[in-house]
Amino acid sequence: MKTDNQIREGFHSIEILLKNRPEVIKKVIVPKTREDARIHKLLEACSDKDIAVEKSKKIKKNPQAIVSSMNTGSLKDLKNYLENLSDKVPIFVVLDNVIDPRNMGAIMRSSAIYGVDGIIINKNHCSPITEVVHRTSSGGSDLLKIYMVSNLINCIKALQAFGVEVIGLSEHANQAIDQLSFSGAALVLGSEEKGIREKTLLNCDHQINLVRNDKINSLNVAVAAGIALSELKKING
Amino acid sequence: MKTDNQIREGFHSIEILLKNRPEVIKKVIVPKTREDARIHKLLEACSDKDIAVEKSKKIKKNPQAIVSSMNTGSLKDLKNYLENLSDKVPIFVVLDNVIDPRNMGAIMRSSAIYGVDGIIINKNHCSPITEVVHRTSSGGSDLLKIYMVSNLINCIKALQAFGVEVIGLSEHANQAIDQLSFSGAALVLGSEEKGIREKTLLNCDHQINLVRNDKINSLNVAVAAGIALSELKKING
Repeated sequence: MKTDNQIREGFHSIEILLKNRPEVIKKVIVPKTREDARIHKLLEACSDKDIAVEKSKKIKKNPQAIVSSMNTGSLKDLKNYLENLSDKVPIFVVLDNVIDPRNMGAIMRSSAIYGVDGIIINKNHCSPITEVVHRTSSGGSDLLKIYMVSNLINCIKALQAFGVEVIGLSEHANQAIDQLSFSGAALVLGSEEKGIREKTLLNCDHQINLVRNDKINSLNVAVAAGIALSELKKING
Repeated sequence: MKTDNQIREGFHSIEILLKNRPEVIKKVIVPKTREDARIHKLLEACSDKDIAVEKSKKIKKNPQAIVSSMNTGSLKDLKNYLENLSDKVPIFVVLDNVIDPRNMGAIMRSSAIYGVDGIIINKNHCSPITEVVHRTSSGGSDLLKIYMVSNLINCIKALQAFGVEVIGLSEHANQAIDQLSFSGAALVLGSEEKGIREKTLLNCDHQINLVRNDKINSLNVAVAAGIALSELKKING
């Protein structure tokens, strides 16, 4: 499984990296033929941070950055993080079987904006972290701590052992999200087609539904994740 | 501008049409070679509603439906709707310059689920309503009333004349959405890259921002739309 694509494409992603994590950028490559204000601003920012720049004929429109390895961790790293939380109320996002890379990227983007403590990816059932994931995350993938796990049930049990409430989003559930209270939350998301896998859902502490409509009843998973994160942050930001 | 693509693809979209608006379906085309429970269920539903079915070798995997014209209207139709509202609190979604068809489709999907009164599209500055829009709307595009307008400022003034508060989403704004109260709302959305056009933003009654994060500050527009609709429905559903 390819989890560690080292190319980031587009101004937005690179600008966010330059602002927040310039230390991971090995090199920025810009189109040789492009001369405009936005490229100049980017070149200036690279110069300010002492980052190498290459002008290339191969890329035509958008700049690229080559980055060092992603900030991923294992279940052991997650447990270590939970042990050292002190009194912070953690919020995690758990991807059970999110297979569309655009949805995965959009979920990472929202997760970074809402400042979640980490994204947990069930690595045998989700999309790999591809270039599309990075691009649609719009810089978010590099600002998040990403935990890759192979046994999600064990991971859920570890979260629960630390007092984290595990909350599955399901269109068949009856509970509303604003009825929850928690001192730690993990929001579990499943595929668009089939939802969260049954075995995972059975291990959730809560099953919640965001909106009821008899005609059409399933939000896009990235939209649902954004709404749920916004609510969780309001309950216990 | 192509606004009236008559093909709907995929089980989900067709199932939603069969359930809610079977009268617009002219014909359903299924892959000749596919024989499974889902296809059989679809064929049964078509038979129940007396809808013609064609088996085709040309399509390989997903069924298609051929539909009659979309339920679109003009500014005049919108004014007519507003005149006849009685005491319903209307909520509209306004697309100023949403050019990504996937975002447009996802916004339509959420708008249908949250039961908005209509989507208003600035037709010279938005994506046309393509097959991608229909597909990502997951049936939503056929459940919504869609108003196509060419002069958005005139349209905004018409909404305001009927007491509808026009609310622009902007990452530069300071007002939070839960500070609003209204007896009618129109949520204005702009492009990912540039936001709402300045001239449109100047004509909004409110400019609101959903979340502040200094590192990365812009939600995907479809995610932002979903969060805002969820909030507007809570204020005045």
